[in-house]
Amino acid sequence: PERGEQDNIVALVAAQDTDDVALLLESLPLEQRLKVWDGIPKRRRLDVLVAMRGDPRETLIAATDIDEWEAIFFEVDAEQLLELSDSLPNALVDKALDAMDKQQRQYFTDASQFSDDQIGHWLSQDPLVLPLNAKVRDALRLIRRDVPTHADTIFLVNRAGQFSEAVKLTKVMGLPDHVPLVDLSEETFDTINAEDELTLASLMVQRSGFASLPVVDEQNKVLGRLDISTASELLNEFYERQVMATAGMDEDEDLFSSVPKSAKNRAVWLGINLLTAFLASGFIGMFEATLQQVVALAVLMPIVASMGGIAGSQTLTLMIRGLALGQVTSSNVKALLKKELSVGGLNGVVWALVIGCIAYFWFADPMLGVVICVAILLNIIAAAAAGVVVPMVLHKFNIDPALSGSVILTTVTDIVGFVAFLGLGTLFLL
Amino acid sequence: PERGEQDNIVALVAAQDTDDVALLLESLPLEQRLKVWDGIPKRRRLDVLVAMRGDPRETLIAATDIDEWEAIFFEVDAEQLLELSDSLPNALVDKALDAMDKQQRQYFTDASQFSDDQIGHWLSQDPLVLPLNAKVRDALRLIRRDVPTHADTIFLVNRAGQFSEAVKLTKVMGLPDHVPLVDLSEETFDTINAEDELTLASLMVQRSGFASLPVVDEQNKVLGRLDISTASELLNEFYERQVMATAGMDEDEDLFSSVPKSAKNRAVWLGINLLTAFLASGFIGMFEATLQQVVALAVLMPIVASMGGIAGSQTLTLMIRGLALGQVTSSNVKALLKKELSVGGLNGVVWALVIGCIAYFWFADPMLGVVICVAILLNIIAAAAAGVVVPMVLHKFNIDPALSGSVILTTVTDIVGFVAFLGLGTLFLL
Repeated sequence: PERGEQDNIVALVAAQDTDDVALLLESLPLEQRLKVWDGIPKRRRLDVLVAMRGDPRETLIAATDIDEWEAIFFEVDAEQLLELSDSLPNALVDKALDAMDKQQRQYFTDASQFSDDQIGHWLSQDPLVLPLNAKVRDALRLIRRDVPTHADTIFLVNRAGQFSEAVKLTKVMGLPDHVPLVDLSEETFDTINAEDELTLASLMVQRSGFASLPVVDEQNKVLGRLDISTASELLNEFYERQVMATAGMDEDEDLFSSVPKSAKNRAVWLGINLLTAFLASGFIGMFEATLQQVVALAVLMPIVASMGGIAGSQTLTLMIRGLALGQVTSSNVKALLKKELSVGGLNGVVWALVIGCIAYFWFADPMLGVVICVAILLNIIAAAAAGVVVPMVLHKFNIDPALSGSVILTTVTDIVGFVAFLGLGTLFLL
Repeated sequence: PERGEQDNIVALVAAQDTDDVALLLESLPLEQRLKVWDGIPKRRRLDVLVAMRGDPRETLIAATDIDEWEAIFFEVDAEQLLELSDSLPNALVDKALDAMDKQQRQYFTDASQFSDDQIGHWLSQDPLVLPLNAKVRDALRLIRRDVPTHADTIFLVNRAGQFSEAVKLTKVMGLPDHVPLVDLSEETFDTINAEDELTLASLMVQRSGFASLPVVDEQNKVLGRLDISTASELLNEFYERQVMATAGMDEDEDLFSSVPKSAKNRAVWLGINLLTAFLASGFIGMFEATLQQVVALAVLMPIVASMGGIAGSQTLTLMIRGLALGQVTSSNVKALLKKELSVGGLNGVVWALVIGCIAYFWFADPMLGVVICVAILLNIIAAAAAGVVVPMVLHKFNIDPALSGSVILTTVTDIVGFVAFLGLGTLFLL
């Protein structure tokens, strides 16, 4: 039966496309994952590795024998190696480079000069390029040779290789051979700088209406192109990173990473949160005497912290999106702060009254109701302020607010909430 | 100076592309937003509205005079109206339909039959379609007329209009007129069903290597196409919805919505969280007598809840992504639960010991150290279990775990944490 099962897997995998095989491998526990991996033909493995996320990919790389790599790297190109290189030991990167021709090696070296948060690292180095004086016949010759995926325009460059005009392939069709291409060029056509940041450049391609935009260096020389499929994947990764960052993980996280590795990845985040939790406890500790006398404060304490935390995370989430999309800048942050403080004030008053009444009836103590009412109001307003200010400051220091924003915010709302509630309790309830 | 400022805005907006204008409008406080809106030529306003998010868009629609719509709807088409219709009062939808020709009205009716979480609602109704027996000359004639954005293939259909083959436009070029198109067709080419869910269909287009895939009905008849730019935008919206859902907001949320509206949007989420917070407080209240005698329990209580909440949200985040991508299914959820419990157990033991030691030294009470140690361990393991089970159950009932998962999870970890800690405290510290 073991043998038959293996055959089934091989047949199943053979029928699926590369991305589905990659997703399947990611969704399998390690032992089964390796079994399926063994059933994938060596020639196909490279594409599958390229399509996988970092962590699950590394489990397969670690399980691959050193003498299997020759077959896997049989037709490796620069783009594939750029995607994989972070997951590969240096010796294997060298092996892959040895398997490439000179041109691909050069492509790899060129792209490696850019960090992986710059477009230069991710461009396709196969743009359709012709000189400015080219004619329809030149375009047809170029097209007949080979049109790469998502290349729908020819870039016309001057003698220095600088980008000048772009001509849509479909405009060339059916025209006489001698028509100059410049006569067919697009009126407006954007270029991307190789040092540009990934998200905004990808959005530019997504919105351009073209399948690729040229990527140029500082001298406007064409280095390659960014195609819409790559752009769309880069955007997916950007959003995934944001989602995962809110829980202190990165987007490479493996569903079935080994237990020690997974525990280690998450321990840091737990540790950071523990520090902030102890900090909050430290502030509560200052009011031990009060808590001993008015135990209702201990019972209601989490409500004050929780309402602040939720209100703050709403403002923070709006700010993180706004900063990432370029909606929030120093020019409108003041108006935004004012609006968020107003929203906080309004919701603060409403919920403070509700909670105050409930607390009053629950513990039959009107003063307790007043104390929690004021504490909630103060904490929700503080949360709105922190929700605007914390991500702005982090952004200014180039720290991703999606990652560290929520920890800092929760610390603020916990401490303000506990101190306000227990402090007011000490003043008015003892 | 007022006049000059207005001129400046008009000039600034005129130089920007539609998406940038939309983003600019979204990032302005309401008063300024309306000022800029007034400076945008009426012919351009429709495109800008289409590019905007729901809530900020509605602020502009509400501020537009009824007699301005004729000019705005001058060239409205079905796709634009489909995007806008949720934001428009019925009278304006009718006005727009009146401005369309019969074909566009039919397109609108056809697409409206699908709900907005189905591909049929978002398809482009301008596919390049030819009969199966068409030749290169027919293709060239079609291309010369007009090639829509991101249409890189011709779909060949049989007499019943059913999809049969696809031919890349660039393959047609330079070939003799009489060559049958079927000879040039792609080996593998996927189709999308009009009832398909948005995210997986969009990923299919993104990965296909083609700029559009055909959208077909149940009989395989071609209804239109889904292009890669639309697919990429749908994916952006999917991720934005996830990010915003974690704070109980939707992706249409306006950075500068009016204070009452914004407060109302967020109040629901605050209210739900308040219920769960009171539930947790209710459980704390059961231990009032214990808290009065051992006030250290009140001081350390938030730490137990917080560690459980963080650990649980890590598992939950991984699960939400896995469910959305189809990585997590009933076939691997058992293995996943086992892994998450192991990770929780390992991190639980480590952090339980750390926290136990700190608590012991802080309050000089060894038994308190043991109590918090056991409570932390129990809560982190419960958090791992809930992090897997809660989203699975929600998913089964077609409830988005990104929205309600975190509230339910926090409720579980709060209650388990408080009950375990205060319960053990009652048993061993009194």
